[in-house]
Amino acid sequence: MAIKNVNYALLGVGGVGSALVDAIAGARDHHLKTYGVKLTACLVADSSGALVAKGGLDDAALRGAVAAKAKGEKVSSLEGAIAAADVAEAVAGLGPGTVVVDCSATDATVPLLIRAVTGGQKVVSANKKPFSGPQADYDALCGQPRFVDRVRHESSVGAGLPAIAALQRLVMANDPVKKISGTFSGTLGYVMTGLQAGRPFSEIVLEAKQLGYTEPDPRDDLGGVDVARKALILARGLGWRLEMSDVDVTPLYPPELAALSVPDFLAALPGLDAGFKAKADAAAAAGEALRYAANVEDGKLTVGLASVALASPLGSLSGTDNLVEYYTQWYDPSPLVVRGAGAGAGTTAAGVLADMLELAFTP
Amino acid sequence: MAIKNVNYALLGVGGVGSALVDAIAGARDHHLKTYGVKLTACLVADSSGALVAKGGLDDAALRGAVAAKAKGEKVSSLEGAIAAADVAEAVAGLGPGTVVVDCSATDATVPLLIRAVTGGQKVVSANKKPFSGPQADYDALCGQPRFVDRVRHESSVGAGLPAIAALQRLVMANDPVKKISGTFSGTLGYVMTGLQAGRPFSEIVLEAKQLGYTEPDPRDDLGGVDVARKALILARGLGWRLEMSDVDVTPLYPPELAALSVPDFLAALPGLDAGFKAKADAAAAAGEALRYAANVEDGKLTVGLASVALASPLGSLSGTDNLVEYYTQWYDPSPLVVRGAGAGAGTTAAGVLADMLELAFTP
Repeated sequence: MAIKNVNYALLGVGGVGSALVDAIAGARDHHLKTYGVKLTACLVADSSGALVAKGGLDDAALRGAVAAKAKGEKVSSLEGAIAAADVAEAVAGLGPGTVVVDCSATDATVPLLIRAVTGGQKVVSANKKPFSGPQADYDALCGQPRFVDRVRHESSVGAGLPAIAALQRLVMANDPVKKISGTFSGTLGYVMTGLQAGRPFSEIVLEAKQLGYTEPDPRDDLGGVDVARKALILARGLGWRLEMSDVDVTPLYPPELAALSVPDFLAALPGLDAGFKAKADAAAAAGEALRYAANVEDGKLTVGLASVALASPLGSLSGTDNLVEYYTQWYDPSPLVVRGAGAGAGTTAAGVLADMLELAFTP
Repeated sequence: MAIKNVNYALLGVGGVGSALVDAIAGARDHHLKTYGVKLTACLVADSSGALVAKGGLDDAALRGAVAAKAKGEKVSSLEGAIAAADVAEAVAGLGPGTVVVDCSATDATVPLLIRAVTGGQKVVSANKKPFSGPQADYDALCGQPRFVDRVRHESSVGAGLPAIAALQRLVMANDPVKKISGTFSGTLGYVMTGLQAGRPFSEIVLEAKQLGYTEPDPRDDLGGVDVARKALILARGLGWRLEMSDVDVTPLYPPELAALSVPDFLAALPGLDAGFKAKADAAAAAGEALRYAANVEDGKLTVGLASVALASPLGSLSGTDNLVEYYTQWYDPSPLVVRGAGAGAGTTAAGVLADMLELAFTP
């Protein structure tokens, strides 16, 4: 049996990068037996620097880098590490066919990723920043015609959910997509389920914050920017050309609460309860439910509160699951639906790993 | 811009094959612009024979073959056609890299498909027979290690729904799949929705037959064998090795109705109404609903009537949509769900076309 060795360079050793290292180690025998594929880490980097070995890092080095990060240390402090300024050159030096895996959360990787795809390397990204930044970066990364054989970024939307894979198949089949509607935030799903159950908005948000479901400043979730980034990536997958500034985002809080300190914002939340209750009651009376949804339709991308039929897939959702509806020539009036957990380091890393395996079969 | 030309041979020019020819013609500009890919038909066959042109059939010849079939004529009657006995050799003669596309519904294509994959050609199939026949045929077609670069058969399960694509990504990510539950029959979905609404079983089946939702003999749907074939294909996608005879299928009618003529069977249906009503009422009282579902779990594959929680994805289903739930390490307790239309020539052909495009990027 011929073994196909695939070298990769890992950027980012936080939660997702660490989960990926574990997943690859655990999948080694399975990948060999089922696919004849062996994945070899040749570089592991954080923002400070990298460990590099063209012939493959040993497991101890790889796990050392992950462990250092977990302890709050920097990769550059490890023995044999190169400095941040030398990482791009080291990645390029790994040669064509290497898969550059972005598990970071910064747009600082963009030049390196563009250099990789243009230099015959491949890119897999869980990082949504490079694909939701300027259209020009997206074009350079995804190609025209598209670099189907070289670039995958499934985990940039809905973690490991095959939302982009499903979309890509619709586009390949030339099945015209008329509308995409989706929820892309487990946190906001939790809030909507609470509203549907008749609970006060402020109480749900405070609970979600205590449970660690929200960012330290809940406005980072309630503002909808993260949802907008994901919807932008799907719209670009359709071939739409637009920028984040073209997305019409309506936050779940009014503008006058935007400038408050976090404690003052939290104290002001009960003032929103009556308004949300009225909206939730009106939705329920109409056989509908509130969702914080993205809508891609008629050339416009909107993100905000929507009232959807209870009998629809989005209406049947509860809890923190993500859900995407695709309305096309063949999926209409009933959409194609992909649903499931849309967050978490494990499922995000699983999406990255599937992307890596898919690219193992392209030249 | 380098254009990648992909030659294909089309087996079967019925509803799906015809829809595929239309879809490919309609997608020509899109495929060139978006992917730099051009699909060229070099052979088109039915069971009687084929038209062949190594350099590509012109559109008139291709459409002529489809039109002949639609008029009840045979491809072998067309000018320049070769006989059925010569088709396998002609397909092989198209050389490596050719995509052999099976839009037939017979297991007679199996030897030709196996010869194709072993000879460096690729296979895309909407035909479920080759993948739900003997395990040995499946192994020869799908390979060990798997021929990810050479074989796709998405439309053999749930038409164009990305059910196999989603499963394949879970397997690539080594995310252990504990259970798959799904409905794979629009007809039986329609029956279950009717039962849930309190309608008599016999009335729903007769209506479905009049609407053309069922086969001429409704037992071909109610018997569950088609559902079992699809579930078997998903189980094999997990790496399970089993035969159709290992699937535990419980039809929706009792054994004593199996040997009746179609009119006698239809006349006997009202005798089943009380039993179904009792089951539907019991399900409703428990906050559940009846579904005709396949279950892949603990090494066993069962197909039959099941009562599922209304709040679950399967419970939220209505009408003719198909739905598949995957429970894995990362999708538990909430499963990964794929849902949508699971039948129809258009969506089936769309799945075939997406498979063809994916394989355009492998060597």
